[in-house]
Amino acid sequence: MSQRGFASDNYAGAHPDVLGALAEVNVGHVTSYGYDPTTAVAVAQFRELLGEQVEVFFVFNGTGANVVGLQALLRPWESVVCARSAHINVDECGAPERHLGSKVLDLPTPDGKLTPNLVRSVHTGIGDEHRAQPRVVSITQSTELGTAYSADEVMALADTAHSLDMHLHMDGARISNAAAGLGVELRDTTGECGVDVLSFGGTKNGLLGGEAVVFFRAELAQDALFIRKQQMQLASKMRFISAQFVALLTDDLWRRNASHANAMAQRLAAAVGDVPGVTITQRVQANGVFAILPADAIPALQEEFHFYVWDESSHECRWMCSWDTTEHDVDRFAAAIVSAAAKHA
Amino acid sequence: MSQRGFASDNYAGAHPDVLGALAEVNVGHVTSYGYDPTTAVAVAQFRELLGEQVEVFFVFNGTGANVVGLQALLRPWESVVCARSAHINVDECGAPERHLGSKVLDLPTPDGKLTPNLVRSVHTGIGDEHRAQPRVVSITQSTELGTAYSADEVMALADTAHSLDMHLHMDGARISNAAAGLGVELRDTTGECGVDVLSFGGTKNGLLGGEAVVFFRAELAQDALFIRKQQMQLASKMRFISAQFVALLTDDLWRRNASHANAMAQRLAAAVGDVPGVTITQRVQANGVFAILPADAIPALQEEFHFYVWDESSHECRWMCSWDTTEHDVDRFAAAIVSAAAKHA
Amino acid sequence: MSQRGFASDNYAGAHPDVLGALAEVNVGHVTSYGYDPTTAVAVAQFRELLGEQVEVFFVFNGTGANVVGLQALLRPWESVVCARSAHINVDECGAPERHLGSKVLDLPTPDGKLTPNLVRSVHTGIGDEHRAQPRVVSITQSTELGTAYSADEVMALADTAHSLDMHLHMDGARISNAAAGLGVELRDTTGECGVDVLSFGGTKNGLLGGEAVVFFRAELAQDALFIRKQQMQLASKMRFISAQFVALLTDDLWRRNASHANAMAQRLAAAVGDVPGVTITQRVQANGVFAILPADAIPALQEEFHFYVWDESSHECRWMCSWDTTEHDVDRFAAAIVSAAAKHA
Amino acid sequence: MSQRGFASDNYAGAHPDVLGALAEVNVGHVTSYGYDPTTAVAVAQFRELLGEQVEVFFVFNGTGANVVGLQALLRPWESVVCARSAHINVDECGAPERHLGSKVLDLPTPDGKLTPNLVRSVHTGIGDEHRAQPRVVSITQSTELGTAYSADEVMALADTAHSLDMHLHMDGARISNAAAGLGVELRDTTGECGVDVLSFGGTKNGLLGGEAVVFFRAELAQDALFIRKQQMQLASKMRFISAQFVALLTDDLWRRNASHANAMAQRLAAAVGDVPGVTITQRVQANGVFAILPADAIPALQEEFHFYVWDESSHECRWMCSWDTTEHDVDRFAAAIVSAAAKHA
Repeated sequence: MSQRGFASDNYAGAHPDVLGALAEVNVGHVTSYGYDPTTAVAVAQFRELLGEQVEVFFVFNGTGANVVGLQALLRPWESVVCARSAHINVDECGAPERHLGSKVLDLPTPDGKLTPNLVRSVHTGIGDEHRAQPRVVSITQSTELGTAYSADEVMALADTAHSLDMHLHMDGARISNAAAGLGVELRDTTGECGVDVLSFGGTKNGLLGGEAVVFFRAELAQDALFIRKQQMQLASKMRFISAQFVALLTDDLWRRNASHANAMAQRLAAAVGDVPGVTITQRVQANGVFAILPADAIPALQEEFHFYVWDESSHECRWMCSWDTTEHDVDRFAAAIVSAAAKHA
Repeated sequence: MSQRGFASDNYAGAHPDVLGALAEVNVGHVTSYGYDPTTAVAVAQFRELLGEQVEVFFVFNGTGANVVGLQALLRPWESVVCARSAHINVDECGAPERHLGSKVLDLPTPDGKLTPNLVRSVHTGIGDEHRAQPRVVSITQSTELGTAYSADEVMALADTAHSLDMHLHMDGARISNAAAGLGVELRDTTGECGVDVLSFGGTKNGLLGGEAVVFFRAELAQDALFIRKQQMQLASKMRFISAQFVALLTDDLWRRNASHANAMAQRLAAAVGDVPGVTITQRVQANGVFAILPADAIPALQEEFHFYVWDESSHECRWMCSWDTTEHDVDRFAAAIVSAAAKHA
Repeated sequence: MSQRGFASDNYAGAHPDVLGALAEVNVGHVTSYGYDPTTAVAVAQFRELLGEQVEVFFVFNGTGANVVGLQALLRPWESVVCARSAHINVDECGAPERHLGSKVLDLPTPDGKLTPNLVRSVHTGIGDEHRAQPRVVSITQSTELGTAYSADEVMALADTAHSLDMHLHMDGARISNAAAGLGVELRDTTGECGVDVLSFGGTKNGLLGGEAVVFFRAELAQDALFIRKQQMQLASKMRFISAQFVALLTDDLWRRNASHANAMAQRLAAAVGDVPGVTITQRVQANGVFAILPADAIPALQEEFHFYVWDESSHECRWMCSWDTTEHDVDRFAAAIVSAAAKHA
Repeated sequence: MSQRGFASDNYAGAHPDVLGALAEVNVGHVTSYGYDPTTAVAVAQFRELLGEQVEVFFVFNGTGANVVGLQALLRPWESVVCARSAHINVDECGAPERHLGSKVLDLPTPDGKLTPNLVRSVHTGIGDEHRAQPRVVSITQSTELGTAYSADEVMALADTAHSLDMHLHMDGARISNAAAGLGVELRDTTGECGVDVLSFGGTKNGLLGGEAVVFFRAELAQDALFIRKQQMQLASKMRFISAQFVALLTDDLWRRNASHANAMAQRLAAAVGDVPGVTITQRVQANGVFAILPADAIPALQEEFHFYVWDESSHECRWMCSWDTTEHDVDRFAAAIVSAAAKHA
């Protein structure tokens, strides 16, 4: 397989500008572990985008970003509240529990989005030493279900969290897709809404590999150097991660990649949304489409196109678009869906 | 700074072949998390080099490789024995203790090398539940002091470990330099000598970033997939790590890079070894030179060349050569040392 | 307060026989850490009651017993499935996550009891390294809601667990109340039903303090000595824990205490069950009664009698009876409930 | 065996006053988990002895006390410095590493005592994220070798620690023996010398089982309730631990027990110190005597008296005296030593 499918945005490769940036910085010797000029440039770009006060730490992957950011906010007897569908809850093999020592309180949601009321519902037992103490609200933007929080929704969660002496953490593995989908600047759905710590995703949006932990309040970052190192997320030849971010943040590549992937998801949803037998189950606000198909249509489609069944019991499928998905890819896939649905409806 | 210095082999960039390999695999979509064809090729290359039975897991960095490999060998009440100078003891911010829950028993050595007698000296309290139970011997090849274990020495340690119901772990962040220096095949200083698990270093030998955990006995690897994921060392776009290893293992690039770095270290040692005021303190068996200089000579030299003082009290310095160090670099540096030593002797 | 209330069975003191046993063993010097004759006697008594093959390890408290037992069954990337109301989920301040590194998968239940179907519903993602792997089913007998599993129910869970390559763990903080309530021998609701590891509760049934971890299959206990010690649950003057168990297991004191507490719960339930405004919410199968009262009746009652509101939103109260609760205590309390309910209905 | 030997002070039973105190508090119902009147009395007694500002948390055992106290002072990337012979280093099965995630930096000492210079020698790499950051100095008073720190020595260590932004932790499993031996009040070798957190030993000095974690600065104790619970060291029927401490702190029982044990050690040392073939190796400042015997004398002696060989290679033995050791016990043992030494000299 090297054709493009709809299985995951990390099945895609790297954007050419990103690869190019690696070659550019591959010159001579520079100090390792982030004390190099490329890293300084990347951090400066982040500050321009997100606010002069932010502290930024590059790491290897999304699980690492979440753990490093959360550890800065949590002691082991404190817990983190998240949606049941959250990556930290279901896709990290228990790494948060293992590395934080903390309880993860997961709450069912129809659309992958927490609400202030949900958060309040588990804010109990405060001061009772028998109960893990809720201390962080963690939301995913855009969510694992392809939906996105509006600025107002993030702000309401931040206000709720802060009023309860909790922090707001955002898993932004697809933060660029969210900002592009909402049509706002990155800061407008993060720091400006009260987010305290952000996992800024790069890999799914066209990097080879690299994420950033962004602290919107410097005092939360005071231990981050040690946390990152002890959590095994410190790259020695850091310039090669930083350079990827320089490329991503230059000339809005982050937005171009994300907008394109989002547009492809919209195109796909539009093409199959009214097809009998196909039910789109979530709002398409980023680069993923969730849809229920006739059960028998699925295996046939999967022979030709890669994608995952999200819920075996309801035959709900997940179709992810990437920075490199083409209109042709979408149109071929949509035609196949239409045909399969007709055949098995 | 982007001239080449002697501070660290991870101040160097990536070998052009390695960068080139990234471009080559940056085509279309492939399955993520290691289930891609490039990873299969890289694993096959490792098997050819190290033995058909090996199991190989790519990870991000050296600390991650050591932790993943050691966790497969240890339960938290068991301990790992190493030289005091070992990377796992002094350069990983306590990551082994944190992630393994295990005690690290460090032993002073003159040359960074454990011996069977040292291992036996701490093999006490077996069966006594009050004592952490020694379970792994971890050695570094080549060592943090630029020395290398001979095949006989590794074998003797493996025999000792196995006779004590312990495993032999090798931190091979510079395994290529060791094999090149010893003039042997990679397998001849690892699996053939009885090593059970190896951290195979790539980053210091010309990769952008990537290490491999190699299990020489398949049964030790049975939990490795889960350990790697939970320990936050699983790359989503794995092809970009694997491709680097493919380049490194093709046409003996690993040996060419390492031999060159080693030769530069020999050249440097030869050039300054007999200079009055300069005392080379360790055998030069890989790509590092350790030498005591007149105290006053050091700051002057450091103005022009990057290197670290290894021991402030004895004025011992560490000079590391890389795959990209040139004869000209060495000759300039050696001349500067000669001049500084003469001036401050 | 030193009158008897209905707040908790650990508000009660120790049975006189238990205190007496301490004095009896307080003679001369004996080997510490469990290598003393009293401990040997206590273990022999457990074997007589539960099966000759059991391995028994005394620990300090219930949380410790659960963690020690579970650690013997779990690696950090494996998870434990339990009812949402389970002590390990809500009353141990996240100790299981912290000390096991494992995910706790909690499932809502109406009565505190897991079922085979519930277990199967979360047995997903097997072999997928992104998902914590379900490995232990943990049930509480009698449950935190005062209900008890029948022998058939435990057996069905054991069969389900074993067929899924999982273990069955039982938190038996009130195992004596369960056995007494079911009218069976201790082994008939534990090992004979397929339980693999049991936290055998002593403290709530008349000890000063002491629990036992019982392994029904010796091979599961092979690391237990080290686990107990490293988990800080090894008593130096062990004879003083063991002696309490000797007393508890002698002349069926365990059953007499538990039966009495259960009978008091039945008496209370019978006295108030038909009172208008009082709704008993759970079957009374052990020593606790759960009942909804008129909201305004609660504070008045609490002025005179200690008990906890279990659910603030529904005004459900928990009334626990102990080995030392008297008929007079129950009758006074029941009369007060009747009167308060009448006043506030 | 129930005669008194010299193996360990935890081979002894409980002082009659301690047992008596259990009976006294075994009346009616009281709130569990430390919210009972006996616990309040015990805490008040501690404040009278150690200073009104102290915060006190009762726990089960010495390892638990050390872990709870240290966790309040440490983050996982920080390390604790101790003597190689320290209980936290060699007798707790790696519990500190496991539960703190922290590195334990152990330093060889001739007498079990750290010095300011030793502490300074490992206070390196500050601010370097690759190195665990030294944050706590932990000393044992009296030491595992039967020696004691003078007030001046503790003060010098406290000053050194504080000047380096470190805390001073004292493992006082035998703090009473130290104070009694030094002829001072408990506060004069702890808080008044600058100790920040103390593990106050009860078990070895006549309790059935119980230790206390004492914080001399309230701000260090702010998380202690949660730490104790999550670390599985919270007793439900707390009154039965507190009552033991009430007995110990009443009428100076702590001092009477400790002074007696110390006097027995002095008597033993005096009786055998000049015997040919016997070399006392450590100052006798508490309740232990360390002495080298002729190798062949040891097994014969051990047939009649329990004691441990401390160092197999040098034939150094450890003889511990307890609160219940009698003059007659000592005289019989001394006579046997004299005779064995004569026979095997």
